Amino acid sequence: MCSLPVPRQPLRRVAVTGGTHGNEMSGVYLARHWLQAPGDLQRPSFSATPVLANPAATAACRRYVDRDLNRTFTTTFLTARASPDDPYEVTRARELNQLLGPKASGQAFDFILDLHNTTANMGTCLIADNAHNVFAMHLCHHLQLQKPELSCRVFLYQQPGEESYAIASVAKNGIGLELGPQPQGVLRADLFSRMRALVAACLDFIELFNQGTAFPAFEAEAYSVSGTVDFPRTQDGDLAGTVHPQLQDRDFEPLRPGAPIFQTFGGEDVLYEGESTVFPVFINEAAYYEKGIAFIQTEKLTFSVPALPSLTPAPSPVP
Amino acid sequence: MCSLPVPRQPLRRVAVTGGTHGNEMSGVYLARHWLQAPGDLQRPSFSATPVLANPAATAACRRYVDRDLNRTFTTTFLTARASPDDPYEVTRARELNQLLGPKASGQAFDFILDLHNTTANMGTCLIADNAHNVFAMHLCHHLQLQKPELSCRVFLYQQPGEESYAIASVAKNGIGLELGPQPQGVLRADLFSRMRALVAACLDFIELFNQGTAFPAFEAEAYSVSGTVDFPRTQDGDLAGTVHPQLQDRDFEPLRPGAPIFQTFGGEDVLYEGESTVFPVFINEAAYYEKGIAFIQTEKLTFSVPALPSLTPAPSPVP
Repeated sequence: MCSLPVPRQPLRRVAVTGGTHGNEMSGVYLARHWLQAPGDLQRPSFSATPVLANPAATAACRRYVDRDLNRTFTTTFLTARASPDDPYEVTRARELNQLLGPKASGQAFDFILDLHNTTANMGTCLIADNAHNVFAMHLCHHLQLQKPELSCRVFLYQQPGEESYAIASVAKNGIGLELGPQPQGVLRADLFSRMRALVAACLDFIELFNQGTAFPAFEAEAYSVSGTVDFPRTQDGDLAGTVHPQLQDRDFEPLRPGAPIFQTFGGEDVLYEGESTVFPVFINEAAYYEKGIAFIQTEKLTFSVPALPSLTPAPSPVP
Repeated sequence: MCSLPVPRQPLRRVAVTGGTHGNEMSGVYLARHWLQAPGDLQRPSFSATPVLANPAATAACRRYVDRDLNRTFTTTFLTARASPDDPYEVTRARELNQLLGPKASGQAFDFILDLHNTTANMGTCLIADNAHNVFAMHLCHHLQLQKPELSCRVFLYQQPGEESYAIASVAKNGIGLELGPQPQGVLRADLFSRMRALVAACLDFIELFNQGTAFPAFEAEAYSVSGTVDFPRTQDGDLAGTVHPQLQDRDFEPLRPGAPIFQTFGGEDVLYEGESTVFPVFINEAAYYEKGIAFIQTEKLTFSVPALPSLTPAPSPVP
């Protein structure tokens, strides 16, 4: 498996973004707290910057105002000529791209850690773009080792050939934290504490790397998107049923051909007709109804991640 | 305890309202289903009318568009002169008052069953206005006896001297069903099935009454509102903490003086300073953040409910 280049310099420009979706409350309130009291975000070699990514959606306690901000960091949106008629989130994506990027440039932030919640029973999920991202894979592995009680799972969202679109893609490196289940608009103390501890562990990893720690190669396991499945619908596009009780809350568990996936309002079971076992995630996520997604299918991958070498001290500048 | 008059005639005009809050999905989809296929709502002596109470909020998957519909059925809103500037829900409340009322008139529907979900861990909760409502108390008792596995609890929302404001108050009689936990915007199959079964049991009770069944006196237990408690807040009104892990999900359990109720973002516990044990409900309900309610305090009451006499056949009209 090919792998992307790893950082050759300490990561000093690090951002922690919350409220990218304005009704996912763990990140909203962590960002707000750290904007007032940033002590948690300080390490010897850097201080992470807290960012409330979508203030208007956060104020309205909605996922977004005009369109999903976390699908808006593409070249098309970021480089088009600005207009007063632009959707709020397109304007905001450009502002964030100025603050944290520009995306794919040398001036971009070194790392973005983006905080999310889901209504699905996802537990502690670490979201990276793909398995080639060696630095992100090592960070995920570090979290798994540091927090074994959380059974952190790694979800790889980027499909082959797909342009990255999420806020973390603006920086040179980044991951998302996705904790659930938590209803939209609700702040649970347990998830708040868990997310805070995970952010601390991420910053600790970056600090270790910055201080010259090397990390050995390892065998990784991750769940990679292979498709999406919509709800059963009427001819008018309304729901005709919902997620089957035997699938509800079973994120990351194997779904075998022939198993029930939906229950129609008429009382019939709809069975999974795929040819092989998949691992559904984001099962019955509130925000995905409008996207036509009842769950996301993943494949479970195992792969080798090469060692993350120690930073070599930069040569002293010639006086 | 005084009691209100019980029906002297069969209840023939019965409505089942869903989507009174547009993001509480069990009722939204039951109402939509019954508008297409009303078979579930038919009984020998009556056919219940399904009503999607707040279509605009339902289409937007929001609790409401301009204001909470289920706080709008008061004399002030229902009788004020209509204006094009009225909030959507004020206009809609007047429409529903025409359809199902007028409130407090002889033409009003005999019964409204109103369907709700909560993000709180309320299990199966039956909401009545007050303990003097003998017919509603007998219906709740019937559900408790018919569905012992659901441990149905009775919540009395009306405080002394307070005008009724909920949609069920438009009819001569009514109750609400409040099932949780379910995130806003999510339809869980288990809660959908449970609500459907409870509606069927409610209609069965009305049918039994209509057919001349008498119901004996009994001792009732219910939870009656005694106050509300807000989250800890900053000087600016933002949250300064959230519900304590030891209180989260403990709806209807005793809360004793000195027990922790909140955890601040600074890590401190806030203790319950009341002088007596209360029973919190609607703990960390998403929709109540904006109302300044972290939970509702109730007192547990036990009281005697008199027998519900059999309907006496009306005298034959003189030819």
